[in-house]
Amino acid sequence: MSESKHRPSRWKKLGHTIQAKTAVFDVQSVRYRHTARGTEKNFVVVRAPDWVNVLALTRDGRLVLVRQFRFGTDGFSLEIPGGVMEPGEDPVVAGVRELREETGYVGRNARLLGRVHPNPAIQSNWFHVVLVEDAERTAELEWDETEELEVTTLPVEEVLAQARNGGITHSLVLNALFLLEPRWRAHRGEGPKTRDQGPV
Amino acid sequence: MSESKHRPSRWKKLGHTIQAKTAVFDVQSVRYRHTARGTEKNFVVVRAPDWVNVLALTRDGRLVLVRQFRFGTDGFSLEIPGGVMEPGEDPVVAGVRELREETGYVGRNARLLGRVHPNPAIQSNWFHVVLVEDAERTAELEWDETEELEVTTLPVEEVLAQARNGGITHSLVLNALFLLEPRWRAHRGEGPKTRDQGPV
Repeated sequence: MSESKHRPSRWKKLGHTIQAKTAVFDVQSVRYRHTARGTEKNFVVVRAPDWVNVLALTRDGRLVLVRQFRFGTDGFSLEIPGGVMEPGEDPVVAGVRELREETGYVGRNARLLGRVHPNPAIQSNWFHVVLVEDAERTAELEWDETEELEVTTLPVEEVLAQARNGGITHSLVLNALFLLEPRWRAHRGEGPKTRDQGPV
Repeated sequence: MSESKHRPSRWKKLGHTIQAKTAVFDVQSVRYRHTARGTEKNFVVVRAPDWVNVLALTRDGRLVLVRQFRFGTDGFSLEIPGGVMEPGEDPVVAGVRELREETGYVGRNARLLGRVHPNPAIQSNWFHVVLVEDAERTAELEWDETEELEVTTLPVEEVLAQARNGGITHSLVLNALFLLEPRWRAHRGEGPKTRDQGPV
């Protein structure tokens, strides 16, 4: 599929120093050598644990959402539940846990929809997307010290509309909806068929 | 739309210290006070310039892609062109510039499709998505010192398929495709109609 003749070279990692350690990630300065030219240069890499978000569908076609204050953007954000995974933790287990702790919702048929890199240029971690069906609010909330959430549900169509009109701005939440949308449309008999014709 | 009675409180920013300065972002420790409880706590915020990516469509329904080595993930990544915006720069101007410099492609009818927050929890910046039509390779490449890209094109349908099967993993590239997809399907007469029935 190449159009330009040029094939980019691999860079070889030589070592790193830590520039900062924070509560949610470390910042490394990583020394790389260009394998063709032999030149060396430092690049910044953010090392964080993997993250997980959960698409929790109710029986009547609604998604469980949380609205919370976000310190990065200094404002409120409408999102799906999620959080940081423990080292070695299975994404589905982590997603089901985050869903229950943040919202009190518990569901069935939990499974991985996919995973993405939040930013391959500067971040090493993965973000995993978990789908849960038949979600019902049956558990007690277990919020972390600074967690404070408004839990709500909206029809999937309305969530997709908000995702495209600026009502939902979180890149990773939009990724989850991108993975959900073709399954949802196939399930509803709309749009191109996908090979995976499960319940959703 | 509230289901839980609880409304999360706003936090008030009191000040910040800089934990690290890097080539691509600063890391701040930001002091916040909970406006209801009066408690205070520091939160980590990554301050970076805004970023922009470009969906460059050719006349025959292909998207311009770049493949490059990415230091965050220590591997190659298939993406759409893009980069860092200058302070105060218009996203469309920045997108057209990045497209030309990285790929040599120039197009028409450049416009903003939308913008997202890469990560509201820990990042303050916006990521903008620009659409360019009738893209043709007519300009010279102008790569930065460490840029080295394979420029290619693929049919939009194939790009969307790769975006959902793990061939494209960059969260922000997937956001751009999420914004493009309903326009593309409406343009092709598939899927639900959108209000914006432009050329794409």
